[in-house]
Amino acid sequence: MAQLLRVQNFMVSSDGVAAGENQSLENPFGLDGAERLFSWAGATASWPNRTDPGGSRGLDDYFARDFRNNIGAEIMGRNKFGPQRGPWQDHQWRGWWGEEPPFRTPVFVLTHHPRPSITLSDTTFHFVDADPATALELAREAAQGKDVRLGGGVTTVREFLDADLVDTLHVAVAPVKLGTGLRLWDSPDELLDRFHLDVVPSPSGVTHHLLWRK
Amino acid sequence: MAQLLRVQNFMVSSDGVAAGENQSLENPFGLDGAERLFSWAGATASWPNRTDPGGSRGLDDYFARDFRNNIGAEIMGRNKFGPQRGPWQDHQWRGWWGEEPPFRTPVFVLTHHPRPSITLSDTTFHFVDADPATALELAREAAQGKDVRLGGGVTTVREFLDADLVDTLHVAVAPVKLGTGLRLWDSPDELLDRFHLDVVPSPSGVTHHLLWRK
Repeated sequence: MAQLLRVQNFMVSSDGVAAGENQSLENPFGLDGAERLFSWAGATASWPNRTDPGGSRGLDDYFARDFRNNIGAEIMGRNKFGPQRGPWQDHQWRGWWGEEPPFRTPVFVLTHHPRPSITLSDTTFHFVDADPATALELAREAAQGKDVRLGGGVTTVREFLDADLVDTLHVAVAPVKLGTGLRLWDSPDELLDRFHLDVVPSPSGVTHHLLWRK
Repeated sequence: MAQLLRVQNFMVSSDGVAAGENQSLENPFGLDGAERLFSWAGATASWPNRTDPGGSRGLDDYFARDFRNNIGAEIMGRNKFGPQRGPWQDHQWRGWWGEEPPFRTPVFVLTHHPRPSITLSDTTFHFVDADPATALELAREAAQGKDVRLGGGVTTVREFLDADLVDTLHVAVAPVKLGTGLRLWDSPDELLDRFHLDVVPSPSGVTHHLLWRK
């Protein structure tokens, strides 16, 4: 069985915006109204950060619970780990994800400024200065035969798409237009030369876009 | 986290028929044209019995690959294990599932005629003469915190629904009318007093019905 590189539960606006340009410690997505992109996922029973019981087990939940299914490692851009730029100033600050990060696998954080690995519960963050193909090789080895999740942010996903390394994408398009920000795409049609596409509207209002390599 | 009892990838015709009445060794479903109910699943990359590479990774694949996701045991009726009725005549015949059954967990086969357990690769079949609630208790214990799959056949699913033990159902309704046979339902509306329902048409032609307890 091939080891896939999978984008999962990636959330964008109807005009393709996934993040703003003014990311900060207080505003991880740098967007006003980012919660309008994510509310469908928070309503599911399987959302990793859920704190109360309950939640839906309909269509959206199948995507939420696929997040960890057969995943053995994640690759993320530095901006998904934290808002700092340039050399690390404070090794005490250990990322946005708290003491129980939802990844539960090795995570490879792409950065030009390596630092020692950090283990938080059953997640270990490794910091690597590597091009996409090399990072993927490291992550595949760490995944021990399972698939690798490409966790974002949007700039990282685009880099891996440009390098033609992505096998599948699940993108949840929310019914909200944001106008400015960092875009995954102007339209999913841009990927149709390389990918099949299923478009699946959900009762929650988001439209799941499922792409897989031709 | 609660341990759910889940029906997954259960396949019926547009008129709710899941099996015929003349099951035999040569015709496990006792239906002419049973393959019209299953072809959507066989076309997916994750279908457990797939022998060649390839296959789609669109919507249908999310359901196919959820088959084993967080499942620790299965419960099935005797007719899903084999076509025999009454006392077992031949302990050498070890079921329809070959030397590598796709379950890969303990499986509890409901029968009035217990026999010694059988291990085939990483699946062990246990034969138990028990009512639904007792069988579920056994399966939950064997599942070690994971969910339990209710594997069918249709008579078994209906018994567990009657006993109100089922938490979620994924039923794939194929665009074919069969007329006679064993029915899961006349209409999914019969379950709406107890379950939420998402209805999700797939590009393959089947309509996924996702039900979860209110």
